[in-house]
Amino acid sequence: MNDTSSQLQSQIVARGEEILKRMEGQSKASIFSKDFWYGSIMEWSMKNDKFKTNMFRFVDVLPSINSGDEFSRHLKEYFSEDGGALPPVFNVGLGLGALAPSLMAGAIRKNVMGMAKIFITGETPDEALPVLKKARKNKMTFTVDILGEATLSEKEAQNYSSKYMELINWLAKDAQSWEEIPQIDRDHEGPLPKVNVSVKMTALYSQIKDLAWDESKKILKDRMRPIFRLGMEKGLFINLDMEQYSVKHLTLEVFTELISEPEFKNYKFFGVVIQAYLRDSFADVRSLTEFAQKRGTPFWVRLVKGAYWDYETIEAEQRGWPIPVYTNKLESDANYEACAKYLLENIKFIRPAFASHNVRTLSACMLYAEKLNIPKAALEFQMLYGMAEPIKKTLVDMGYRMREYAPVGELIPGMAYLVRRLLENTSNESWLRGKFADGKTTSELLKDPAQSLQPTSPFLVQKESHFYNEPLLDFAVKTDRDKMQKALAEFKNTLPVSVPILVNGKELRSAQIFSRNNPSHADEVVGKISMATVEQAEQAMQAAQKAYAPWKHTSAGERANLLDKLADLMKRDRFKLIATQVFEVGKPWAEADGDIGEAIDFCRYYARHMRELQKPQRVGHLPGEVSQYIYKSRGVTVVIAPWNFPLAILAGMVAAAAVTGNTVVMKPAEQSSVVAWGLMKMIQEAGFPAGVVNFLPGFGEEVGEYLVNHKDTATIAFTGSKAVGLHILKKAMDVQPGQQQVKRCIIEMGGKNAVIIDNDADLDEAVDGVLYSAFGYSGQKCSAASRVIVLDEVYDRFVDRLVEAAKSIEVLPVENPKAYMGPVVDQEAHERILGMIADGEKNHKLLFKGSVPVHGFFAPPTIFGDVPGDAKLAQQEVFGPVVTIIRAKDLSQALTLANGTEYALTGGVFSRSPANIARVKEEFEVGNLYINRGITGAMVNRHPFGGFKMSGVGSKTGGPDYLKQYMEPICVTENTLRRGFAPLEE
Amino acid sequence: MNDTSSQLQSQIVARGEEILKRMEGQSKASIFSKDFWYGSIMEWSMKNDKFKTNMFRFVDVLPSINSGDEFSRHLKEYFSEDGGALPPVFNVGLGLGALAPSLMAGAIRKNVMGMAKIFITGETPDEALPVLKKARKNKMTFTVDILGEATLSEKEAQNYSSKYMELINWLAKDAQSWEEIPQIDRDHEGPLPKVNVSVKMTALYSQIKDLAWDESKKILKDRMRPIFRLGMEKGLFINLDMEQYSVKHLTLEVFTELISEPEFKNYKFFGVVIQAYLRDSFADVRSLTEFAQKRGTPFWVRLVKGAYWDYETIEAEQRGWPIPVYTNKLESDANYEACAKYLLENIKFIRPAFASHNVRTLSACMLYAEKLNIPKAALEFQMLYGMAEPIKKTLVDMGYRMREYAPVGELIPGMAYLVRRLLENTSNESWLRGKFADGKTTSELLKDPAQSLQPTSPFLVQKESHFYNEPLLDFAVKTDRDKMQKALAEFKNTLPVSVPILVNGKELRSAQIFSRNNPSHADEVVGKISMATVEQAEQAMQAAQKAYAPWKHTSAGERANLLDKLADLMKRDRFKLIATQVFEVGKPWAEADGDIGEAIDFCRYYARHMRELQKPQRVGHLPGEVSQYIYKSRGVTVVIAPWNFPLAILAGMVAAAAVTGNTVVMKPAEQSSVVAWGLMKMIQEAGFPAGVVNFLPGFGEEVGEYLVNHKDTATIAFTGSKAVGLHILKKAMDVQPGQQQVKRCIIEMGGKNAVIIDNDADLDEAVDGVLYSAFGYSGQKCSAASRVIVLDEVYDRFVDRLVEAAKSIEVLPVENPKAYMGPVVDQEAHERILGMIADGEKNHKLLFKGSVPVHGFFAPPTIFGDVPGDAKLAQQEVFGPVVTIIRAKDLSQALTLANGTEYALTGGVFSRSPANIARVKEEFEVGNLYINRGITGAMVNRHPFGGFKMSGVGSKTGGPDYLKQYMEPICVTENTLRRGFAPLEE
Repeated sequence: MNDTSSQLQSQIVARGEEILKRMEGQSKASIFSKDFWYGSIMEWSMKNDKFKTNMFRFVDVLPSINSGDEFSRHLKEYFSEDGGALPPVFNVGLGLGALAPSLMAGAIRKNVMGMAKIFITGETPDEALPVLKKARKNKMTFTVDILGEATLSEKEAQNYSSKYMELINWLAKDAQSWEEIPQIDRDHEGPLPKVNVSVKMTALYSQIKDLAWDESKKILKDRMRPIFRLGMEKGLFINLDMEQYSVKHLTLEVFTELISEPEFKNYKFFGVVIQAYLRDSFADVRSLTEFAQKRGTPFWVRLVKGAYWDYETIEAEQRGWPIPVYTNKLESDANYEACAKYLLENIKFIRPAFASHNVRTLSACMLYAEKLNIPKAALEFQMLYGMAEPIKKTLVDMGYRMREYAPVGELIPGMAYLVRRLLENTSNESWLRGKFADGKTTSELLKDPAQSLQPTSPFLVQKESHFYNEPLLDFAVKTDRDKMQKALAEFKNTLPVSVPILVNGKELRSAQIFSRNNPSHADEVVGKISMATVEQAEQAMQAAQKAYAPWKHTSAGERANLLDKLADLMKRDRFKLIATQVFEVGKPWAEADGDIGEAIDFCRYYARHMRELQKPQRVGHLPGEVSQYIYKSRGVTVVIAPWNFPLAILAGMVAAAAVTGNTVVMKPAEQSSVVAWGLMKMIQEAGFPAGVVNFLPGFGEEVGEYLVNHKDTATIAFTGSKAVGLHILKKAMDVQPGQQQVKRCIIEMGGKNAVIIDNDADLDEAVDGVLYSAFGYSGQKCSAASRVIVLDEVYDRFVDRLVEAAKSIEVLPVENPKAYMGPVVDQEAHERILGMIADGEKNHKLLFKGSVPVHGFFAPPTIFGDVPGDAKLAQQEVFGPVVTIIRAKDLSQALTLANGTEYALTGGVFSRSPANIARVKEEFEVGNLYINRGITGAMVNRHPFGGFKMSGVGSKTGGPDYLKQYMEPICVTENTLRRGFAPLEE
Repeated sequence: MNDTSSQLQSQIVARGEEILKRMEGQSKASIFSKDFWYGSIMEWSMKNDKFKTNMFRFVDVLPSINSGDEFSRHLKEYFSEDGGALPPVFNVGLGLGALAPSLMAGAIRKNVMGMAKIFITGETPDEALPVLKKARKNKMTFTVDILGEATLSEKEAQNYSSKYMELINWLAKDAQSWEEIPQIDRDHEGPLPKVNVSVKMTALYSQIKDLAWDESKKILKDRMRPIFRLGMEKGLFINLDMEQYSVKHLTLEVFTELISEPEFKNYKFFGVVIQAYLRDSFADVRSLTEFAQKRGTPFWVRLVKGAYWDYETIEAEQRGWPIPVYTNKLESDANYEACAKYLLENIKFIRPAFASHNVRTLSACMLYAEKLNIPKAALEFQMLYGMAEPIKKTLVDMGYRMREYAPVGELIPGMAYLVRRLLENTSNESWLRGKFADGKTTSELLKDPAQSLQPTSPFLVQKESHFYNEPLLDFAVKTDRDKMQKALAEFKNTLPVSVPILVNGKELRSAQIFSRNNPSHADEVVGKISMATVEQAEQAMQAAQKAYAPWKHTSAGERANLLDKLADLMKRDRFKLIATQVFEVGKPWAEADGDIGEAIDFCRYYARHMRELQKPQRVGHLPGEVSQYIYKSRGVTVVIAPWNFPLAILAGMVAAAAVTGNTVVMKPAEQSSVVAWGLMKMIQEAGFPAGVVNFLPGFGEEVGEYLVNHKDTATIAFTGSKAVGLHILKKAMDVQPGQQQVKRCIIEMGGKNAVIIDNDADLDEAVDGVLYSAFGYSGQKCSAASRVIVLDEVYDRFVDRLVEAAKSIEVLPVENPKAYMGPVVDQEAHERILGMIADGEKNHKLLFKGSVPVHGFFAPPTIFGDVPGDAKLAQQEVFGPVVTIIRAKDLSQALTLANGTEYALTGGVFSRSPANIARVKEEFEVGNLYINRGITGAMVNRHPFGGFKMSGVGSKTGGPDYLKQYMEPICVTENTLRRGFAPLEE
């Protein structure tokens, strides 16, 4: 550290000490907590993680609880197990104290609601206005923000727009009568708008899609423009708030492009936000500065630390993407100071506003400004309403401009905001907590965050013991969108693809050619497929039988290495593989990418698992004997795959069969033979010996049947319809002449999957989860949600939002990245689904039927309401974008309805009642149960997948038992005692 | 320690020092090893356990190797993997040195054979005689012992008897010309026989059975009597040697009873052996002394430490019986001294001979004698031929009588003796090793073993992490034999047992009564069984269906506790349960006991395993999500059981189904309904709720069929014939109206199990293992050996011994404990088996057909030779006491033959070639492969049991995957992220 910077550091600390000293007069209670109840909740939360989780979850669910009984029930469910470790106020609420429980419950409810009011100025602008005006009296100005639920539909987006417009109009009007207070209403250059409004971009459009980047941006700008325009007309400040990282790039582009437009380019009072906890924030500050320089007229940048830290890290870890935030709080603090310094150095072009409650940070900003001789009036500090009152007051007293971030809005979304604030205040790394709760020393509180900083990496260290899923593509990355477009164009040029048969490494053709057309454009021929004859099926069986002996004696390690190689090839050819699915089976980009990712995962997971399973397991422990439990291969496996996950399911079954030492005859679905041929070519390239995997496109009734009945078939792996699955199960048990072993069938069939919506469900999540589970890939997933069982009390609210959300989605040919939903797979499916919809319309209440393109096999997203649980529509698998909503009076009835089909594949529940969740876990009969999330998109290893009852025979792909099905357990027992002597064994 | 004993200890040490001092002149090589080669082998063995194991195994197999090529191959197989860690003599043998490998191999062979000659006086008495005479010149006398193979047949027993008689005659004759040497040929009372012969009791009778105690004893005495008589006539000393603990009680009884007989009771020169390492040896010394007192004429006791320590501990651990030997060497040494002292104190009544190489022990014996003023001539010391030469010489020089234990015999059994000696000399606790190899100090070598001794327990501490099988009964214990006789008599009194149906806890009757008769005595009615009607089957299904919901929600822990309770009841009622099987299914005592033990094991193992499986398994590891992999029950399980393991298999299937949360309808085999009813009553007594297990005796074609086809049947657990198994598999896949789930079939069927006999097999073990595997329970086990594939080179030797062994077994009604084999299960089986034998006789070479009782359903033990592998007899399951021997030219052909049936259940190989064992492990297609042991008698946990191909669907009872078949894996995934906040999870 050189002398100058060392001197500066001393000055920053001195300024910090001054501020802290000025704050001393004020009481702790009046700062960090408004009252005893809030204070004691905070204190318990800091001491006890379990309580903190339960408390915050309880706060979250509270606004959606309507009755006192329900309130008491939730209170008990969340807190009774904690017993003694609760604040006294809770014990009485649980009936453990002297007062009547219901009275106490009421008091607690009031207290929790009261907590929200600490941080929210009012439920409506009306309520907020006096609060804002009172602040002005204390020489603090504000920026108003509207709290709201997630925008799930265009109706909701429209609603938000209106609210912003009304707010602007209404505040502008009222502000006309406000007296100017120079400390807050002027800067060094002159007057500032008295009214400042913060707008959230995601509130204005429900269908933001990274894939459809330009389209999304265009619509967002269209929706933002009237707000900017009105703000400018009225002379207000309009700030575009920053939300989660996934929309950061888009937000910055929308902002800069918008304020570059002629009508806006000379207006000074637009602002945007930079989150210093983001690793790329300094780069963003620099490019915004360059942009400002070009624009000429300055605009504002609010520099914040960032409030979604938990979410961003979890989201990135779950996706396997680099973590966008600094994982060390000191790095964020240091980066904040660096950004602040840079902004101050460029104050000519760009105006900074420093939002922080950290006195060290504030002091540093002041000192950097002073070094640059920037006048005090050019500085603006921002803090959240309801927090850090003494700091605010001190800065006001010191003559700085202080702006409060002042949310206005209803309690339900307000609770989410409250939870964020509670998290912030109880975080181990909170400066406020350090100061007011933990009593850190002044020197700790004020020390330079950059001093002896250990930099962190955005990449997690992977643990040997863990399996990591292949990350999906991030279409927010432009190069990936471009690669995708290129791959689509290139693939289109190769059409139609000629698909042969491949037996023992040799390509064969047949006279029977099946023409496969693009379901989005029925006249486009994607593939010309040689459909195998029975004779060719016999050749394939013989090839597989012949290849079996050498393959089973190949070491498991070598076989596993080949699977890893195959996974690498899939990764290399990713964009081409996606393009193939877009054209052949009408799968939208991201879902096709998910399919490739899953195929990669299957290969790697099974390779990894086989390396484990090959190790003999010692059974027994007695001296004089070594008994080993070993898994061995079974023989020829016939793989019959569906078209809906055309790569993943096929590759998964083939990979499992082959890595366990079996040879394979694979028969893909007619509709996805081109995708399957792509797999076959990669298998060859990976180096699997000829004959180990044979490729037999063909018709199920012909060659499928032949393979199933073949005497040499050891195992049949099938995924498809119930009818075909049951047929295979039956036929496989006919012992053929010369057959040497009982066939084993690994059969996955359909589902009639239900999602239960409990009274206290988080509707933001429930609507979104159900929508995608029902309409993702046009409902053509065996895991798709086709029944939604909604509890009476929440029925209307849920259904209204769901229908509006459904209205907002776009059904398009899937080469168009805007497509939320594409076509169904072929004409047959199209006719069947339309028939079922027509039938449903005759018998049930149609809530919604979407509009679709006229060419291609597009089925409309359709919602039926109040369908009886035993109706055909509620019992038969549709395998299309049709949802049946069933009303249930309570959870018991919901469970009876949910279990009331012959299927048991996936199921879900949205609930925030711990007891109800536990009950559903125990009673809902499904192979995969999802709690508070969508019910599709099972990930290998994380969600071993498969159903029972009439949904399958209990296999679970991507799980710990799957590979064993392709093998036989063998026990080898050696008597090691010879002549009375046995070696010692471990 | 009081003064006297302290003084004595000093004197013992002083005497020891004197002996050691006298020994000093002699070189190490001349003592501990006769030459460099032997010395270096000993040295490597002491340093390297792996080498020691391989070396001793190699020594063991060597005599059975006939060609140089085979010798080289074995040499390589045993030693090449050790690479550098070999003595140089071996490296050249492996071709790693300069000399031609074949030359070196020859040298090694000669050296190993030479090692045997260190310890064996000669292959024949002729060869031995000069050696013995030479010893006499050095003032050492001898006792001659005949080394031989295990006595597997009465022919071999007869052969041994003749050898002993010849030896006695021949030595007696030659000794007539021997000059008396007073130091060895006289004791304090007068002349001793110059010739001393040691006899092994087990050599004289091949059918010793603990169960048939009195009968065995009678025959042994009959066979011993001529030897004793001849010895006495010729004035020789006859010593009855002691072998393994299992025959110790019998040996002592035979000895004492024999020498109490009038013709022998006055002869002094009989001797017996006490092994001081046995925990009960001191008690035996005392009772022998009392017996001697009563007899009047003294006899001799040779006091040894004992040479089967490894074997005794392993055997006891494997059986779960108390360990008969001291596990701490010092305890044996201290006990030896205590026994010696006691014997010396009673020298009036009984004559001791002290056999030991331990100078401390020898000194103690001398001093104890001196304290008692016993003359030196009254003392006799014994040591093994070829060991401890300088000690022998020293004692001779000191004027003591020294007798060498001098084996004479062929190389093959000689090698076993050699291995025992090598083990002794390389044991960490060997006194000789301590003195001559490890260079222990004199004070260590001579210290009082009783000083600060830590007593050990005969009971192993059981580890939480291990499963322990229920020990079988030890019928060497008289009280257990008596209890068994009592239980048989009591059960007989209750006949016929009336067996009802039991549905939902209520007994039902039917009009159709099935009469079950005792297969040993066809006219004895054992049971009168109500055979269920289809209506009653429906009632049972409904009861099980109704009981399902509460049962599946009962905690897994509670269900497991009920199984443990059931196991306790079985243990309590053990003798009664055995008796039931003896009468109802003709099972010999010990095999019935094995069945009860297995049933107990199933209950405990499944209980234990379920406690593990109930714990949800976390899958995935990402924050914001908790995914659990859980096993859940399936529904009503139909259990259809066979009669051959009437309790174990039925109980195992019922236990597995019930503990996993399913309810059960059990249909026992018609032939074992009485046993099954016993199980049902214990299930009730254990406290299983009514309806959880329902009991439905009946005919398979009626109620079995009905249950299999029932729409509510979730799982079918079946063990039985291939025909019925395949029928069930097929019928179960017919989906019935109203059926809600795909049925799962856990099917165990038949076998055509083969044992391969390699050229280098240990025939002692192979013949015994095959005999029991083939004829145990009359071959009525799915695991029974029905094919023996013998390599050409060893064919005749193996077959001769097997046929002779088969001739020696007794087929009797099974209430008679002498029965090696009893009847087959019923008339139908009897007719079928006799038919197959008659058919075989027409087409193949009959090697042996036993004789059987005329009443009852007895099928003769039968052996066919040179049967072609594809003959009907070599392909069809007999399920009776019929063995087909198939000749193979080499191992490849043997494996082809072994794999050449449609079954794959059990299989075995007897081989001492590491490479061949490895190859068989890889290539022999069986569910349970046994190496160098019999192929029946799988134990729960140690040998998870079950086959594939047409033997079953790959289930493995008593193994880690079994219970999972009765359950469905479920994945429950909870999104724990709410409002951007997720609790930390492990």
